[in-house]
Amino acid sequence: MTETAEDKLIARFFRPLASHPGAFALTDDAAVFAPPEGHETVLKTDAVVGGVHVLPDEPAEMIGRKALRMNLSDLAAKGATPAVFLLSLALPRDTSEDWLAAFCRGLKEDADVYRCPLVGGDTDRTDGPLTVTIFAVGTLPRGTMVKRSGARAGDHILVTGSIGDAALGLMLRRDPSLAARWTLSDGERAHLRGRYSLPQPRGALADALRAYASASIDVSDGFVGDLTKLLRVSGVSGEVEVTRVPLSSGAHKALAADSALRDTIYGGGDDYEIICTVADDKLDAFSKAALQAGIAVAAVGRVREGTDSPHFFDAEGKALTFAHRSFSHF
Amino acid sequence: MTETAEDKLIARFFRPLASHPGAFALTDDAAVFAPPEGHETVLKTDAVVGGVHVLPDEPAEMIGRKALRMNLSDLAAKGATPAVFLLSLALPRDTSEDWLAAFCRGLKEDADVYRCPLVGGDTDRTDGPLTVTIFAVGTLPRGTMVKRSGARAGDHILVTGSIGDAALGLMLRRDPSLAARWTLSDGERAHLRGRYSLPQPRGALADALRAYASASIDVSDGFVGDLTKLLRVSGVSGEVEVTRVPLSSGAHKALAADSALRDTIYGGGDDYEIICTVADDKLDAFSKAALQAGIAVAAVGRVREGTDSPHFFDAEGKALTFAHRSFSHF
Repeated sequence: MTETAEDKLIARFFRPLASHPGAFALTDDAAVFAPPEGHETVLKTDAVVGGVHVLPDEPAEMIGRKALRMNLSDLAAKGATPAVFLLSLALPRDTSEDWLAAFCRGLKEDADVYRCPLVGGDTDRTDGPLTVTIFAVGTLPRGTMVKRSGARAGDHILVTGSIGDAALGLMLRRDPSLAARWTLSDGERAHLRGRYSLPQPRGALADALRAYASASIDVSDGFVGDLTKLLRVSGVSGEVEVTRVPLSSGAHKALAADSALRDTIYGGGDDYEIICTVADDKLDAFSKAALQAGIAVAAVGRVREGTDSPHFFDAEGKALTFAHRSFSHF
Repeated sequence: MTETAEDKLIARFFRPLASHPGAFALTDDAAVFAPPEGHETVLKTDAVVGGVHVLPDEPAEMIGRKALRMNLSDLAAKGATPAVFLLSLALPRDTSEDWLAAFCRGLKEDADVYRCPLVGGDTDRTDGPLTVTIFAVGTLPRGTMVKRSGARAGDHILVTGSIGDAALGLMLRRDPSLAARWTLSDGERAHLRGRYSLPQPRGALADALRAYASASIDVSDGFVGDLTKLLRVSGVSGEVEVTRVPLSSGAHKALAADSALRDTIYGGGDDYEIICTVADDKLDAFSKAALQAGIAVAAVGRVREGTDSPHFFDAEGKALTFAHRSFSHF
């Protein structure tokens, strides 16, 4: 029987990603997914749009991986385990089969690594830029999602990994000469660029967050802005000793070379780290669980009573302010 | 505390749609959803892209409704009940607040009517056309999804509503003078145009499909093409008496005026009806259940052994062929 062009596209490029039985090998109208007994689903969508989130020279392999990982980072922050995802693609008319093959190859690699197979999707042509929309479904025991709203005065404020790398990496992608100005080694340059291209979702921390964190947020719009969001929705304020926020060696060098980069580092987007709050009596257990999970966490401040914006200090206790409190496309 | 522009946008336009408790009023990274005891989720994503699926003069109120209904139509065909949805929006930079208000007003109307609240989403700017991606979550008792692949030789082939209206409606939108050429009444013209703009998902049929249908598919890419898909994935063939496929009075008039429209009517897209197959001994019960649900269904043919494409006949038994077996954007 005849197959449509879209059917052939699905069979050739997307079916290899659809290993979950509920995907019906992408031959049905919809997918079926049941969370394990006693569990519920955690639902997230995030998109990357060409010209906004994707640089023109970004390899096809990386784009789908970044889109998927952005979503998995949110699931991790909520304490959820990735389960399945759906993909909606708007493809420019000149998209080649080679591009699509590379896009799917990268995406399959991550779907395998994160054990999060494709179960459905939609592909359309567009007269505009590439748009990759991921709908990620995670699971966790019922009622255990780690919300943004649970921070309480006295809790410690913690952050994973290092902050600001991706925003600096984007600057380096746009102006490679900055590497010399910042006196970066080749390794530091590659690290910062890689942190922009490929988020590292902190899924290994999900169990520890569910067990010990009072609140948690994915750092996608900048450390200062996302911390502010978490505290606001929790109805509290906080204080952070900025010098305790972990920076990579490349970010340290960039900041030493140009102190105006402070706003970029603490306010820029795309970190895909996790800010969480942990009560004083759970801090040791949380830190131990994070260590066992292989995720670096740093205690950078405390939650305080109040509804004012969080306060930032340097090591000498001098107040710091940030020009851009949060990254926004609007 | 300061809020970002995106936070304000969410609070003003999208929060009114987020009545489900698992949406956390759109203040968290992700949503939580648990299917009822003994149920599982049915997952679907479909998008509308400006310039491809949306006419330039389409009112903002209609666009979100169409996008949501396209997805609900798939859930209906699978026998699922709508539960919640997520929305990913790529907005052109010149999108006005008035446009967004109207878009959300229309979407809220349908979210209320179909009892399918918004639980999460993502909003980005794009240099390209508007892209509205919906991720719909339905539920049904575990293991009861009506698949495309269950059709068996001897089953009846049935179709809901009427076929071809939307494709004719799109022609009328592009060339209003066709209304006179097809001798349409004002009511027929409005009916065909409306069928293009606003699908009518056949959710009322979901219970009957689960109870009696052996296979089912949402008719979005044309009657001939979607029937072919269902039979192919079921490993069978079929025969259809085309004159038994229900047409609206406007479609009858258009076909009488221009017999070449047969390909458009039976091969065009956007019907959002349901084709299903029902075993002979269940036909009466299914028809009765459909009648009680208020959904018109017509038996148009039978499933046959074989792997050849389905055969189409006129009332005299003369074989008919179609130029375009299915609508495809590729």
